[in-house]
Amino acid sequence: RALARMGTELRCQCIATHSKFIPPKSIQDVKLTQSGPHCKNVEVIATLKDGREVCLEPTAPWVQLIIKAILAK
Amino acid sequence: RALARMGTELRCQCIATHSKFIPPKSIQDVKLTQSGPHCKNVEVIATLKDGREVCLEPTAPWVQLIIKAILAK
Repeated sequence: RALARMGTELRCQCIATHSKFIPPKSIQDVKLTQSGPHCKNVEVIATLKDGREVCLEPTAPWVQLIIKAILAK
Repeated sequence: RALARMGTELRCQCIATHSKFIPPKSIQDVKLTQSGPHCKNVEVIATLKDGREVCLEPTAPWVQLIIKAILAK
């Protein structure tokens, strides 16, 4: 799952990002966290409908499409 | 704040949406929740750097621009 810990952390939460496409319908929610003093990276964490949490690559085109798809519904 | 309750809920979390522009630099994170059995609406909840949580309108152009700006960093 490549998540260091949950919740509001004082450091980066993603150790690695999931590289394979995840169908939007299996996603429950997506949380975008800005970079800041706690972490130099933008972090995108998807919670899947089965409860798993996965880190996604913010710059991946499919990640941006999924976010667009959620907003467009 | 127009948030019914926090966390993973079995119903909609947003009662109303914040209509005024929020500068991206005052936003800590943004959570996009898909519609589903728990709620017929897509919900966009921003956590501000001062700890407040506000519901945003998913279809508002400025909300989509903020999300794009976070991803592009």
